[in-house]
Amino acid sequence: MEKAKILLEALPYIQKFHNKIFVIKYGGHAMINKEAKNWTAQDIVLLKYVGINPVIVHGGGPEINKAMEKMGKKPEFIHGLRVTDEETLNIVEMVLAGKINGEIVSKISKFGGKAVGLSGKSGRIILAKKKKKFIKNDKGENIEVDLGRVGETVLINTELLDILINNNYIPVISPIGIDEKGEAYNLNADTVAGDIAGALKAEKLILITDVDGIMENPNDKNTLFKKLTVEELKELINSEIITGGMIPKAEAAINALEKGVKAVHIINGKIPHALLLEVFTEEGIGTMIVKE
Amino acid sequence: MEKAKILLEALPYIQKFHNKIFVIKYGGHAMINKEAKNWTAQDIVLLKYVGINPVIVHGGGPEINKAMEKMGKKPEFIHGLRVTDEETLNIVEMVLAGKINGEIVSKISKFGGKAVGLSGKSGRIILAKKKKKFIKNDKGENIEVDLGRVGETVLINTELLDILINNNYIPVISPIGIDEKGEAYNLNADTVAGDIAGALKAEKLILITDVDGIMENPNDKNTLFKKLTVEELKELINSEIITGGMIPKAEAAINALEKGVKAVHIINGKIPHALLLEVFTEEGIGTMIVKE
Amino acid sequence: MEKAKILLEALPYIQKFHNKIFVIKYGGHAMINKEAKNWTAQDIVLLKYVGINPVIVHGGGPEINKAMEKMGKKPEFIHGLRVTDEETLNIVEMVLAGKINGEIVSKISKFGGKAVGLSGKSGRIILAKKKKKFIKNDKGENIEVDLGRVGETVLINTELLDILINNNYIPVISPIGIDEKGEAYNLNADTVAGDIAGALKAEKLILITDVDGIMENPNDKNTLFKKLTVEELKELINSEIITGGMIPKAEAAINALEKGVKAVHIINGKIPHALLLEVFTEEGIGTMIVKE
Amino acid sequence: MEKAKILLEALPYIQKFHNKIFVIKYGGHAMINKEAKNWTAQDIVLLKYVGINPVIVHGGGPEINKAMEKMGKKPEFIHGLRVTDEETLNIVEMVLAGKINGEIVSKISKFGGKAVGLSGKSGRIILAKKKKKFIKNDKGENIEVDLGRVGETVLINTELLDILINNNYIPVISPIGIDEKGEAYNLNADTVAGDIAGALKAEKLILITDVDGIMENPNDKNTLFKKLTVEELKELINSEIITGGMIPKAEAAINALEKGVKAVHIINGKIPHALLLEVFTEEGIGTMIVKE
Amino acid sequence: MEKAKILLEALPYIQKFHNKIFVIKYGGHAMINKEAKNWTAQDIVLLKYVGINPVIVHGGGPEINKAMEKMGKKPEFIHGLRVTDEETLNIVEMVLAGKINGEIVSKISKFGGKAVGLSGKSGRIILAKKKKKFIKNDKGENIEVDLGRVGETVLINTELLDILINNNYIPVISPIGIDEKGEAYNLNADTVAGDIAGALKAEKLILITDVDGIMENPNDKNTLFKKLTVEELKELINSEIITGGMIPKAEAAINALEKGVKAVHIINGKIPHALLLEVFTEEGIGTMIVKE
Amino acid sequence: MEKAKILLEALPYIQKFHNKIFVIKYGGHAMINKEAKNWTAQDIVLLKYVGINPVIVHGGGPEINKAMEKMGKKPEFIHGLRVTDEETLNIVEMVLAGKINGEIVSKISKFGGKAVGLSGKSGRIILAKKKKKFIKNDKGENIEVDLGRVGETVLINTELLDILINNNYIPVISPIGIDEKGEAYNLNADTVAGDIAGALKAEKLILITDVDGIMENPNDKNTLFKKLTVEELKELINSEIITGGMIPKAEAAINALEKGVKAVHIINGKIPHALLLEVFTEEGIGTMIVKE
Repeated sequence: MEKAKILLEALPYIQKFHNKIFVIKYGGHAMINKEAKNWTAQDIVLLKYVGINPVIVHGGGPEINKAMEKMGKKPEFIHGLRVTDEETLNIVEMVLAGKINGEIVSKISKFGGKAVGLSGKSGRIILAKKKKKFIKNDKGENIEVDLGRVGETVLINTELLDILINNNYIPVISPIGIDEKGEAYNLNADTVAGDIAGALKAEKLILITDVDGIMENPNDKNTLFKKLTVEELKELINSEIITGGMIPKAEAAINALEKGVKAVHIINGKIPHALLLEVFTEEGIGTMIVKE
Repeated sequence: MEKAKILLEALPYIQKFHNKIFVIKYGGHAMINKEAKNWTAQDIVLLKYVGINPVIVHGGGPEINKAMEKMGKKPEFIHGLRVTDEETLNIVEMVLAGKINGEIVSKISKFGGKAVGLSGKSGRIILAKKKKKFIKNDKGENIEVDLGRVGETVLINTELLDILINNNYIPVISPIGIDEKGEAYNLNADTVAGDIAGALKAEKLILITDVDGIMENPNDKNTLFKKLTVEELKELINSEIITGGMIPKAEAAINALEKGVKAVHIINGKIPHALLLEVFTEEGIGTMIVKE
Repeated sequence: MEKAKILLEALPYIQKFHNKIFVIKYGGHAMINKEAKNWTAQDIVLLKYVGINPVIVHGGGPEINKAMEKMGKKPEFIHGLRVTDEETLNIVEMVLAGKINGEIVSKISKFGGKAVGLSGKSGRIILAKKKKKFIKNDKGENIEVDLGRVGETVLINTELLDILINNNYIPVISPIGIDEKGEAYNLNADTVAGDIAGALKAEKLILITDVDGIMENPNDKNTLFKKLTVEELKELINSEIITGGMIPKAEAAINALEKGVKAVHIINGKIPHALLLEVFTEEGIGTMIVKE
Repeated sequence: MEKAKILLEALPYIQKFHNKIFVIKYGGHAMINKEAKNWTAQDIVLLKYVGINPVIVHGGGPEINKAMEKMGKKPEFIHGLRVTDEETLNIVEMVLAGKINGEIVSKISKFGGKAVGLSGKSGRIILAKKKKKFIKNDKGENIEVDLGRVGETVLINTELLDILINNNYIPVISPIGIDEKGEAYNLNADTVAGDIAGALKAEKLILITDVDGIMENPNDKNTLFKKLTVEELKELINSEIITGGMIPKAEAAINALEKGVKAVHIINGKIPHALLLEVFTEEGIGTMIVKE
Repeated sequence: MEKAKILLEALPYIQKFHNKIFVIKYGGHAMINKEAKNWTAQDIVLLKYVGINPVIVHGGGPEINKAMEKMGKKPEFIHGLRVTDEETLNIVEMVLAGKINGEIVSKISKFGGKAVGLSGKSGRIILAKKKKKFIKNDKGENIEVDLGRVGETVLINTELLDILINNNYIPVISPIGIDEKGEAYNLNADTVAGDIAGALKAEKLILITDVDGIMENPNDKNTLFKKLTVEELKELINSEIITGGMIPKAEAAINALEKGVKAVHIINGKIPHALLLEVFTEEGIGTMIVKE
Repeated sequence: MEKAKILLEALPYIQKFHNKIFVIKYGGHAMINKEAKNWTAQDIVLLKYVGINPVIVHGGGPEINKAMEKMGKKPEFIHGLRVTDEETLNIVEMVLAGKINGEIVSKISKFGGKAVGLSGKSGRIILAKKKKKFIKNDKGENIEVDLGRVGETVLINTELLDILINNNYIPVISPIGIDEKGEAYNLNADTVAGDIAGALKAEKLILITDVDGIMENPNDKNTLFKKLTVEELKELINSEIITGGMIPKAEAAINALEKGVKAVHIINGKIPHALLLEVFTEEGIGTMIVKE
């Protein structure tokens, strides 16, 4: 009886999100252990089977660092910014497309989902170009720095994703882009996830990370914002309450919402089944951001 | 967390029954009150939204009796068998197709399902003919009795049902048949449900009634059979442990299983959300019958 | 030879109306006897087979009155207006969806057509709400009267009808509506037929009734208007030449024409094969109303 | 009323032949004047609009003879058989594909049908090869004679015809074939019509000629056979009651029936609207041949 | 290796024109001998197989003249303009639709293409009307002359062509038009080709003729214009550098470009494989005309 | 002119292989430098654009060895056989799916093809299991050795490949398999390519390697076998003329041919455009193996 009730509590959400697309950014910091990877995969498969179309974009920071160390590759910096040279890009691709992507595909497959691992180069999903980056020099002048093979999105080609979604596959995308000449670039996974959510006119963009959401005081869980509007979010950025790695997430959220995504969620992947709890319960467990 | 677990417990069933058809016979005796009608409708809608295709066949005995009384129509009998004359058939159709069918459609619609109420005459779904009935007279001879407009299935035309199912509608069917000349017949709802399940190559036939299932001693719930094979079921009929109104149910079960339906369930519609509990839990709550 | 000529006379009409939709309101007063029901069904089937898509909306006034009497249900009135209480609505649904609808389906089936009987609740074809009715009290003030379960159209959902038409079924619709909460309402069949014709962008709305059409003097057949424009029709209403039961028909005609229906016909169903004669002969037999 | 009756008399035939294919061989001798061409075209268009799919194969003997004369081309003979040399084939193609085919297309278009004129070379509809012909010489030996560009069917490619039929076009085919090397051949139109009817699994093959059908005594209309079986037809050939130009028609009929065509009709195109009368009346006007 | 290089040189063109339509006007003067007919057919088939959709419109002036002579038909003139009487139209149709069209179909078939020969009457591809022609009389007044059955395009119906193209057929069209009443007209093939290219939104219109292209001095090949804009082309007409038979070609080019065709080519069909060389090489061999 | 001839020489092959599938095994030893990678990619894109459907399976031996060295991973051996432990499998996946696959996708994209890089785990394309390997011990007994994560094909799931091919994508597959539990395995690329060719009912399996084909004496190019039957190939294996790395290629060829592939080609990827030359010229450049 209790079981039936819980299943039925999910019904309105299942109905509301029927056939809708959820873009899920699965961050490297949330892949803490085998259990966490299992429950996230299981949640994704459940979403699929109740009629929601998940599209996964993954990160992989910690693994990349480990691999670089192992390969004896020293990080380079210009003006304090990390540079991605050719060799670094190779390692990034190997870790993202060759390791993490495959692990996620394996896990989803294990729980009965039909996953397809894709680099953003495939079908030119992520058409990219070299990212222009300017910093201020000592004289306060804007000067361009060359960060190497760091890219930014030019266009998301949705054709291949549409085909896969319509055939009930779950795309799992590495944030590697390609330009017209076939050159590869490394992109920020949060930003790419926002771009993809916007291009696919997704219902939701869900960022799975290792914090509970946006908090007034990151050390006090009681200061978690349950719900924010874009206006409020921008205010929090301006007033520097949001800082560091949360900045690209907040910007991806704003970008996605402005392109028509209905809601963006930031949740803590270390909480078991955070994804299901956020989607299928009234109260949720993280921060939800909506247009207004 | 508990919630997530319960949702995930349902996952293997959701996967297994994805895109499968469940024919659900919703008996008049199970429509005990507004609450029961609500929970059954809710369960049906949930099945639909998690990817299962429910097809409803309803009965309506108690309501028919009430209406006949109200209209001052006396039941007729020949050799102890009830006769369906033209006027009775009219009342039966009015109650089944004009009242009960519409109520079920309303309830499913209320909970967000797209129901289509159909008499078996529509699209000649239930092609029928007059049922031949023989009884033994005093001398032990077989003589035919004329039960009037009582029919039996000649053929189930699945075209219309296939179209509706493929377009995500939930068909709700009254057990009225039609012959080549456009004449209507009243059919036993259990039997028709079995015929339809067989014709649609349904995964399951679920008979919602007002008892807990097949019991060795109908007065002792502890004697419920959780699982039976066709062989065992036939044995129970032969040994007259199954009697009365359970006979057509048992026969419908055997018929459906022989036509390829994977499992038949007999459950008690007076138990809240019996349908969900039977389908989505390991233990179930009624009797499941399988081929072997 | 004569036969060939008559078949060929129909050719230009068959070509002109190829694949077009005709909404046919089949009024209860036109269902005078078995023969009339047969010829109307035959005409409908012929229309279908020569490539026209008929959609039937039926009434049923006389049968409802008979059933209410039989069930000992007294009509209620407020300020001289008939009230549809819950019990009356039940009887209305039983007669319309359970008796008359089924009879039409049977007849069409008998002549080889594939009919599907539908209440307006199915697939929420007729999304309705409680009708607001105001009357003037003694002081000349507008006061609202509660007519109970009498409804008006909010929206016609054409999805289900489109699917059935595209699959060569003939929908037969009872004028029962449903609201978001699953509550049923009784609607005026002429009005609903006009709404459906408008929503389906029908070529024609044909009202089969028991008079020859719109006449200057209802007692003199020679005063029949063969053709009217909307302007002229409104004039006839204003000048009170059109009165009584012809008012909702005239209003349905105006409504349909304003929603894009090309022509509305009012014909006498007591004339054998009135439908064919109106559609396939130059002169027609009733009143045709066009936009201008 | 009379009109309605005649339309309804056609209904059972319209239902029976709904969506079926009729291959109609329209012989040159039946194209006696403008009126006859008009009524045949009109009949074909009516068939199309009531849901039957006509496919026309035409002949053109008399016109070919006229054109050859005009061009000063003398007929050649070997052992008494007419020879089709290159130049003759050119004239045949010009008359069939360039004149008669176009005239039929024009007439059908005039009455509102969508006709497509096709040589059998288009889409390799009629894959042909040189016909082998043997005659007995004075010594009773079989010797082969070279009839030049006379061909016989190797295979009917139905792809193009299926596409046109499914898109509601009426194919009008000249009996010119093509071999693998692109060489053209002249084929007997009756024979080709039978081959096409067989390949398309047509319901009927109708041969429009200038006699009333198969008659015991060709000069006595009272000896017309209304209906024959293949057995009886073969008997009539063996007993030489069927002779001359009726032989290829009879053989085409047998061939078509053996390939699954349901009935073959031989009718007199000089009778106005012979086609409609044969198809839509009980009695018909020519000879119908069925398998048994 | 050399071979591989040449194949790869074609790759950018193959990619650029993938799935695009080329309307090819194949002029009678370019059909100089069997070899020329073979290489043109081969080129067309190659275009098709590398993913381009060719649509052929053919002319046939020289053959028509020959046939008229043979049939003893004297050309008629009014005010110096050739008149197409009924008999002449018959000959034109016979030669175009019955001879030349069939020859092209045969050749394409021989090299493995699926060609469909069509008169512009089929599917009313070329809806035409009588062409109005005015000349100045002695007094400088405009007077109308009756050129008989000479027509001009009213509308190109692309439905049939679209169906054939989508099913991988190569349409081969004779420039014969039809009006609403089924009357045929003879049209200028260059003009029709331009109309068809415009209606199909073709990528290219290619006019295969017997001169190298547009030349400043027709006797000096070195004065060939490789590329012209519409502006420049109009200038050449105004300055009477373009004259005679090149005028309708130039006008067809302007018409097509204004309807959205990307480029028009005029090439010399006497040069072996002129079509391939023009399409698949950087330099081309004729005159290319573009909008600007 | 020469150019046109060479294009036309390819025509019969383009026609013959239209819409057929070529599975191309692109071996790591053939990826000798940037130029070789470019010409192979270009050839693949040309195949696609002339209507052939290439499916790429790649190897990567040399790169894997380099990466292992770099990561300080020592190869393990049991009984002289290389063992793939978990860590080795990780490196294999990173190099194959994360580096080489992406490079091929980039190159194809650069030349205008739509490539999709896929691990065999995606869509469970390569359903695999642990490979059983037996060796003889000193006593001549068969004993099983545990080679770790080396797998063999259980089943090729073609669904995802079919979808991609039908949508004009070029699948590029890494030879990594997955089992029901989501565990990954490393498979021999030649063997997998043969399995995929068989499952897709490919027209050809083309193995691009670094030798000219099968040679009687590997050091003498003049001993190249241009064409072999399966029988002859088996003979060459038995007589130990074929040895070493050519064995799995020969076995893959036999396997593919027995599953219905029409021809297997072994070619030298160090020869520029070897792929085009083998496919589009009469003489070819490598060894072709056919069933008989």
